[in-house]
Order: sequence, then structure tokens, then C-alpha cells
Amino acid sequence: MNYKQFHQRLKKINDISNACSVLSWDAETYMPPKSHKLRGQQVGTLSSLAHEMLTNRKFGDEIQKLLEDETLSENERKNVEIIYNQYLKAKKIPSKFVEEIAALTTEAHPAWVKAKAASDFSVFAPYLKKVASMTKQKAELLGYDNHPYDALIDGYDRGMTCKKVEEVFEKFLPGLKNILQKVQGKPAARVDFLEDRAYPVDTQMQLSKMLSAAIGFDYTRGRLDTAAHPFSTSFHPDDVRMTTRLDEYKLFDGIGSTLHESGHSMHSQGLLTEYYGLPQGEYTNLSTAESQSRIWENNIGRSRAFVSWMYPILRATFPVQFSDVSEDECYAGLNIVKPDFIRVEADELTYHMHIVLRFEAEKAMITGELEVDDLPDFWNAKMKEYLGVDVPNDTKGCLQDVHWAHGSMGYFPTYSFGTMYAAQYDAAMRKEMDVDTLAAMGNFTPMKKWLNKNIHEAGDLYGSSELCKKVTGEGLNPNYLLRYLEAKFL
Amino acid sequence: MNYKQFHQRLKKINDISNACSVLSWDAETYMPPKSHKLRGQQVGTLSSLAHEMLTNRKFGDEIQKLLEDETLSENERKNVEIIYNQYLKAKKIPSKFVEEIAALTTEAHPAWVKAKAASDFSVFAPYLKKVASMTKQKAELLGYDNHPYDALIDGYDRGMTCKKVEEVFEKFLPGLKNILQKVQGKPAARVDFLEDRAYPVDTQMQLSKMLSAAIGFDYTRGRLDTAAHPFSTSFHPDDVRMTTRLDEYKLFDGIGSTLHESGHSMHSQGLLTEYYGLPQGEYTNLSTAESQSRIWENNIGRSRAFVSWMYPILRATFPVQFSDVSEDECYAGLNIVKPDFIRVEADELTYHMHIVLRFEAEKAMITGELEVDDLPDFWNAKMKEYLGVDVPNDTKGCLQDVHWAHGSMGYFPTYSFGTMYAAQYDAAMRKEMDVDTLAAMGNFTPMKKWLNKNIHEAGDLYGSSELCKKVTGEGLNPNYLLRYLEAKFL
Repeated sequence: MNYKQFHQRLKKINDISNACSVLSWDAETYMPPKSHKLRGQQVGTLSSLAHEMLTNRKFGDEIQKLLEDETLSENERKNVEIIYNQYLKAKKIPSKFVEEIAALTTEAHPAWVKAKAASDFSVFAPYLKKVASMTKQKAELLGYDNHPYDALIDGYDRGMTCKKVEEVFEKFLPGLKNILQKVQGKPAARVDFLEDRAYPVDTQMQLSKMLSAAIGFDYTRGRLDTAAHPFSTSFHPDDVRMTTRLDEYKLFDGIGSTLHESGHSMHSQGLLTEYYGLPQGEYTNLSTAESQSRIWENNIGRSRAFVSWMYPILRATFPVQFSDVSEDECYAGLNIVKPDFIRVEADELTYHMHIVLRFEAEKAMITGELEVDDLPDFWNAKMKEYLGVDVPNDTKGCLQDVHWAHGSMGYFPTYSFGTMYAAQYDAAMRKEMDVDTLAAMGNFTPMKKWLNKNIHEAGDLYGSSELCKKVTGEGLNPNYLLRYLEAKFL
Repeated sequence: MNYKQFHQRLKKINDISNACSVLSWDAETYMPPKSHKLRGQQVGTLSSLAHEMLTNRKFGDEIQKLLEDETLSENERKNVEIIYNQYLKAKKIPSKFVEEIAALTTEAHPAWVKAKAASDFSVFAPYLKKVASMTKQKAELLGYDNHPYDALIDGYDRGMTCKKVEEVFEKFLPGLKNILQKVQGKPAARVDFLEDRAYPVDTQMQLSKMLSAAIGFDYTRGRLDTAAHPFSTSFHPDDVRMTTRLDEYKLFDGIGSTLHESGHSMHSQGLLTEYYGLPQGEYTNLSTAESQSRIWENNIGRSRAFVSWMYPILRATFPVQFSDVSEDECYAGLNIVKPDFIRVEADELTYHMHIVLRFEAEKAMITGELEVDDLPDFWNAKMKEYLGVDVPNDTKGCLQDVHWAHGSMGYFPTYSFGTMYAAQYDAAMRKEMDVDTLAAMGNFTPMKKWLNKNIHEAGDLYGSSELCKKVTGEGLNPNYLLRYLEAKFL
């Protein structure tokens, strides 16, 4: 197998997993209500097929041989190495174990839905116990140096370890808490126009399309639809689909969600099609991925400059609802800080406390330091400690996120890291262009191109910190986010 | 391999081809404009995969062995036999030939689009020559007893032959021409409300959904969307998608198209899920398939009784446009007979002359009796002879259909045969229930259930004529259609 054949083979595997993605996108958008069962089966068939092709021993042997090919360029070798490591990792997990996890998730998800609806943790607890113990097993199968959590987070952010996560948070949290404390003394922003006025969702959809197109999402190679949970998915850089959630009484949540998903989707559209199938033409690193959504949602999308561009658009789109709202009030409304129970509704400051809590809970559940049955108490005590709020019930507490019901542990820290990278990339970009002046004029092309060139076109060749070092001159450094938050909120 | 494993294997193959269908449906409905290239590649990967799985020699050997299993029930044996024959047929076509046909089609389709737009047959002629010669080669590879056309039509209507088609048309055409002649002396129907009044497409879409739901299409297991060319596709009996084409100035075309596709889709929804993957749970026979669309579009949908039910709905839906239209005028408008150039817009009488013309052209091109360059003259002369019309240009003549550009020859006769079967099934159904009284009340459930039980639940176990004999007591007999047309039009 030469490099071209290697690439050809990966293209085929990717065609199959991307077909899965089409089926999943369809399931979340247009699929009829009673078609779920068969769709699960069809996606199952395709994903096992892709998995079989990737873990095929003959293929593995050929990749290993290809590594010895001295004519490979540096990037080609990197591509081969990454796939070989994926192959080795996948081989460590017996297919029987994969099936067991899939079966568990199939049961755990509806149990979680039921538990959340009834705010009854005991319904979900038995499944969460199994998820924690199987996740631990998975970590053992994959192997790790210091902490089982290493093996998990590495799957979402290649090269990341538990220790590094702890170090970053240790550096970040005192500063964050300090800002939070100071902000809470400030007068509250005006909220009546956000909470009591209706913004028809059809008009919000038009606005969402306009804003996403303005910042650079290419509608000839993608679409925006609505779904219960906003997400982005890509079948190829030339076909990227995103969804948003629009609520008549949550205008700014809808805008935030659209800008967030646009950031992800512009990342996907910015990958180079010539590398389709190769790591260089994909991304799996969720911290880098999250940096691309957060930079548009927060660093640019909630900036004073962006608001000065968007404010007249909002007034024109909603002339009645915005008749008595000033630009300042609009900006303040986009940047309200308020400790609350729900992670996905959290502001730029309190958000990270939610992540720390989950990181601590996951670590403790996996090592057994925390019994699953004690999770609600643990959760509520931490919420009180970190954010000073009393969690009223488990629906608004430890049952709020779907991740564990999907069998995913080790994922949450990438949300904070992505936000940190976003601030770091934002700072680097501002050295090269006047982002505020450009944003105020509605000229987002230079920023999009900068991200294309520096982040997107690298695909998955580098780990998140490695890429950051390449682009900004230093690896992950939470001080950029602290400085950004201080500048905005203090 | 036992029967259960055989079924399991077919399920997987079907999961893959159904995933292809999802990708193709998406391409016709929601895919962004610039995503076509990659989608072609992804569909190509999946369909070769399904083809490889079906033509796998080991699988073939195992099927052959399974045929010797004496514990198989009669239906199980039939399922195995049908798949074994599919396997043997597929093995006769070298994969290189499949790729060549696919490559030819990839070039022929855009050439046809261009030729049709410019009404310039010479642009398409070189491709049509290749299509004709490769189709001839395909027939030789597959083998046939009497005429190469046998091998082609067998692929669309198992067991059908060129001779049988000729015999049926010989029996049918004199009667049809006789009716046509008599009808043309009759006074013309009122058309102003159909041609000069606008019917907003959004409202037409609501009406389409209402009508299709009324006759029995299940919207919890299917959807209706709009597309440039109406079609039905199924990913499983629990997920059936249809599309319709709505034009502001063609209300009745839209209704006809929706009822037609609903008939196809109710066929798909009526297949038994327990046989998913097996011939018994699918259908490939296009004549039977067409009988299910035509029976709802024509025999029921254009009947006096249906109009008496639909008329008040139309008046309520379009109160202004229908303010001066009587029920009689509505019925007459749905049943206008007018010889014209375009097959897909043809009425119930002239339609079959279009089919005969194509059947004759295909036969003659394959045997070489007709040079492709002479097709336009052949076509126009036949149109003059059969329908008395002068074809103004090739766009409205021999370039109107997409089939040949897709490499499909041998397909057209199933359109007429389906219509004949529809009349035959309609007659059989009317022996068991008072279809007119039920339709006039808007109670379509008994008809739907009759079709479910007699046609849909048989899947693909029987050839079209064999099934017809099982259900009505005799094989294909065009006299039923003649009697139906006489009763309606004379």
C-alpha cells in the first residue's frame, strides 16, 4: 500500500462515516417521528462497517509498513502516524466491549430522559454506575500513565492529561473567582426586552441566516435548520449542516447559539477538500473545535464592536420590540452575568465553574472516591460553594447534561479549554488586524480568513496545545481568557 | 448459513442501500447547491459496497447451499431463489462494465440537460449511441431467449418479455384508438379556472398533505416535500419519503402528482417490516409499483365519486378561485383529453401512445434497425401518426425524458402495464366493496386495507402477472383498462 492507496482507503471509510452523519442529521431534523428504531439499526450497520474497515488487521499491517516508507513528506508521515495510533487504540477495545457500551447507552439514554423529566436521580443511578465502571474499564484497556482520566480525555483532546487539566484550572480559577466576585456587586442590566417581549421564531430564523452568512458561513455549501439541541455536522467541507434552537422569548440565546454553531461549521467548511479522509482534512480535537465556536459566539459576537454593527439590524428586524432599547442596553443584555443552575445557559464567567464541577465529579466517580449514589449531594454542595446557588432539584442539577447518558466521560474540560484557546487566538489575531473596527463595519472576512489559514487548514495534524503554540507562539495559557474577561467585565 | 443468517445478511445489505437512498433523497430536497460532487462520491462508495456484498462469491455459494435446505417453507424458498437469481444476474455483469456504464451515465446526463435546454439533439446523440450500444452489450451479458429487449425489461418486471409486451399492446391499442377518436369529437371542458387563476403553492402543499393523509399515507412514518421531479423513496416501511411538484398555475397537476406518489408511498409503508431485507419485504417490480400509484391517481382520484368528496374541500381551500366553478366543471377539468407532446402531462388516454412510441424506439435502437441520428425524425413521424400532433422541437420531442440519459432502456412499458394492472385491481376491489360510495364519503381505509392485504404484503415474492393472477384470478389483461376508459370517456 502506497500513500495514495492509503488515502483512497481512508476516503472510503470516511464516506461511510459521513453517510452515518447524514442519517443522524436527518434524524434530528426531518425524520418522521416513528422512524427512529430502523434508523438506529441502519446507523449501527454503517458505523460497524466503518469500524471494521479501520481495525482490519491487514490494513493495520500495511499502515505499519507504510510508516517505513522514506519517500513520505513530513505531513504525510504525520497523517500515517495519527491513523496508525487510532488503529492501535481501536484494536485495544474488543468489539464485544464496544457492543456492550452501545447496548448500555441504548438503555441509559431513555433512563436519563425519564429521570430528568421526573427529577428522580434513582432512575438514572444504576445506569450511571455502569457507565462509570465501564468507562473505568475502557481506560484500563486503553492504558494510561498516571490517572485513568488520561485515557479518556486523550480521546477528545489528543495528548491532554488529567494532570494538565488540573494545572490549567489551578492557574485559572483564582483569577476567575476574583472577577466573578467583583462583577456581582455591579448594577443589574435591563432584561425586560429580553424576557417579556416576543420575537417570532420565523423572523429569528431569517436573522440567524443573515448573521451567519455575514460572518462567513457559506450557504452554497451548507444549511441551517432548527433542532431540539443545536449541533453542527459535516459530511464533507462542501456540505456542512448546522442547527440552532429558537425560542420566542429568548432572542439572545438564539443569536448566541447560531453564532456558536456557525463557528463550528466555518471550521468544517474551512478544511481542505484535497485532504478529505486524512487527519489533515478532518478534525477530532474538541478543544480546538470549541475555540472556533467560542471565538465567534463570545470574543467577537458579544463584543461592543459587534453590537454596534448588529444593533441597527436588530432595530430594523424587530422595530416594535426594540423601539425603546438603546445600543448600550443591547450590549449589556448580551453580557449579563448571573450565577445559575444550568450550564448551557451560563454566562462567560460562571460557565467554567460548571465545567470544573463536572471534571471533579467524573474523576471521583471513575476512581471510586465518589459513590454514584452520592452524586446529587456532591453536586449541590459544589454548586453552593462555587456559585452560591441552591440547586432546587436534580433536573436542574446533576441530571441536566446528556453526556454521561451517552457514555461520554472526559469530554467536559474541552469546553473550558476551547474557550481559553479562543481568547488566545483572538489575542493573536488582534495583533495582525483591528478586529473591532472590522466587526463594527460588518467586515468579518479578514477574521474568517485568518482562522481558515491558521486553524482550519491544519486539520487534525496537531494536538490542541501544539497547534496553539504553532499559531500564537505558546501553548495553552489561561491568562489570555482571564485578561479578556477582566477587560470586558471589570 | 441458515435462513436466519441469510436474512441477517440481507438486512445489512439493505441498510447500506437504504442509506444510499437517504443520501439521494437529501440530494433532491435539502442538500446545498454546491455539494453534489462529493455526494456522488459517497453514494458511489456505498452502492459499490452493497453490490460487493451481494455478489460475494462465498455468499453466493452459501445461498446455493441454502436452496438445498429441506426445512425451508415455501415462501422462504422463494425468497432464497429470488436472491440467488439476483446474485447470478449480478455476477454476469463484470464490475468493470458496471463502472463503464456509471461513467457513461455521469457524462450522458449533463449532455442531455444541455441538449434539452438548447433543443439540440446532436449534443446528446453521441451519448445516446453509447447508451444504446452498451445496453445491447448488457443484454448479451445477461442473456435472453428471443430478443435482447427481454433481458432489459426483465430487470424492471421480472419474467416480462418483448413478445409479451407486443402482444399486450396489439390487444390494447385498437380499442384505445377507437376511444380516442370518439372522445375527440366531444365539446371541450372549461379550463379558465385551471390555467388563468393562481393557487398559492403553500396552500397547495397544505392541501396535498391533507389529501394524502386522507387516502392513507401515514405521516408518522413518512414525509412529503417538494422537488423538481416528483418521486417516492423508502428507507424502510417506517420511513417513506415522497415529493411532489407544485406550480401556482397547475393545481390539478399538483393534486395528481401527490396522489400518484402517495400511492407509491402507501405501497412502501404497506410492506411488512418483519421481512425487511428479503424480497418478501421489498418490491422491485415496477409494473406492480405503477399499479399502486395509478389506482389512486386515476381510478380513484379522477373518479366522479372522489370529486364529489374533494369538491367542497377545494371550494373551502380556494374560495375565491373556485367561487364560480361547479362540481361538474371540476370533474371535467380533471379529465381533459388532449393529444400533446409531453408524456408526463398526458391524459389517461393519450398517455399510452407515448409509451408505445418509446417502446418501439428502444427496440429499434437496440437492434440497430433505427440509427440514433434518425431518432428525431422517427419520433416526430410517430407522434403525427399516433396523436396527430406536429412536434415543434426536440425538447418537446425525443429529448423530453431523462430515462435514456440515466442509461435505462426497457423501463417505459411498465408505465402502461402498471396502469392496466391498476384497472384490473380496481375492478377486483369493486367486487368486494362499493368504492364509489366509500370515496364519496372520504372513507378510503377499506381500499387501502385491500391493497395492503392483496398487493403490498406480498412484497416481491411474485412477478407482476403472477401476483395479478393470484389476486384477480387472471394474469395481465388490458381489457380491464379499456372497459374503465370506455365507461369514463364514452
